[in-house]
Amino acid sequence: MLLCDIGNTSYHFFDTDTKQDYKENTKDFNPTEINKTIYYICVHPKIKKLLKEFSNWIDITTMINLEQYYDTIGIDRIVALEAIYNGVIVDAGSAITVDIKKDGIFQGGFIYAGSRAMAQAYKNISSALDYEFNFDIDLTKLPKNSQDAISYGYLKTLYNEVISYNEEIILTGGDAQKFLKIFSSAKIDKFLIFKGMQKIILEDEEGTIDEV
Amino acid sequence: MLLCDIGNTSYHFFDTDTKQDYKENTKDFNPTEINKTIYYICVHPKIKKLLKEFSNWIDITTMINLEQYYDTIGIDRIVALEAIYNGVIVDAGSAITVDIKKDGIFQGGFIYAGSRAMAQAYKNISSALDYEFNFDIDLTKLPKNSQDAISYGYLKTLYNEVISYNEEIILTGGDAQKFLKIFSSAKIDKFLIFKGMQKIILEDEEGTIDEV
Repeated sequence: MLLCDIGNTSYHFFDTDTKQDYKENTKDFNPTEINKTIYYICVHPKIKKLLKEFSNWIDITTMINLEQYYDTIGIDRIVALEAIYNGVIVDAGSAITVDIKKDGIFQGGFIYAGSRAMAQAYKNISSALDYEFNFDIDLTKLPKNSQDAISYGYLKTLYNEVISYNEEIILTGGDAQKFLKIFSSAKIDKFLIFKGMQKIILEDEEGTIDEV
Repeated sequence: MLLCDIGNTSYHFFDTDTKQDYKENTKDFNPTEINKTIYYICVHPKIKKLLKEFSNWIDITTMINLEQYYDTIGIDRIVALEAIYNGVIVDAGSAITVDIKKDGIFQGGFIYAGSRAMAQAYKNISSALDYEFNFDIDLTKLPKNSQDAISYGYLKTLYNEVISYNEEIILTGGDAQKFLKIFSSAKIDKFLIFKGMQKIILEDEEGTIDEV
């Protein structure tokens, strides 16, 4: 089965048979290049509209029971949540989304700035705050230098909140490896979203068979 | 006594006799307009250089024992810290600085993004995250809508950390009133920095007399 998670910058493909993934840039890639069936989710408004034209591109959104989610939550957050029964999902990309699920029920979630956006925010405030974040920082000690002062401001604040749920932490997204330094007890699941997609598709197929 | 706290955008004056304050824009204001003695601190590099020329403008930095602070900490943070013996100072301006002092000793501090910079950071990530922060948010509940998801991401994370010190919270800076909604037990002291300056100047004068 070929899956695709389409974001603002790339088509992220995953082949469930080979367990291989690859990316194509949203600017260059032509979706008619592929003839086989692709199950996808998409947050890119233009591409979302375009893909409706092609019968081999199947949007899985309609297969999900959306009742427990709110209207403006990203479909990528929903799909990742569908992959788990209990836990905190920290999806560290351009934004960091943190979503909590307990006993199969979505508890809510929040959105934090991704590391690149946050570094830019500090830099925009003052050139004196133009530092790379120190992910090796000791978060048990109050900072006494500028780089640690901004790193702690960005990371410790997030850390406190995520840890407070006392649930398993699942890290995903492009910055997952960086954030593992902060959430040392977390597990990384870089294909969490594809797990969720696969689960949704299989459950939908089962449902369809039952109804026949 | 006339005090002045010079930032990136304004000269902030405070008259200790009348307890009145007023601001002048750094772009327009000509410091030679004032002939009486002004005690000041300055983080604006150009103005800092310029003011050295005028004998009635007295930089109080040399009056402070800087031993317990680190080199790149802003002079405004130091002066605010000099005003207290115990507590957490949350200075909410273009950046939010959080500094902790216990029994007269600086414990360290961190820097978080100010509300304007943070809102811009969310907006830069995606137009879907372009919201005003909801300072009336209930931080005891996980969010289930987009505005609260970013407000919680920004505010609850800061809240957890500041509350964790179990010390009196003193709010200062231009956004102090907004943040009082989040830190309801805090006290606002909008002239904290001028209290610090006054204390430093008086102690310096006493020191000078003792030494004679």
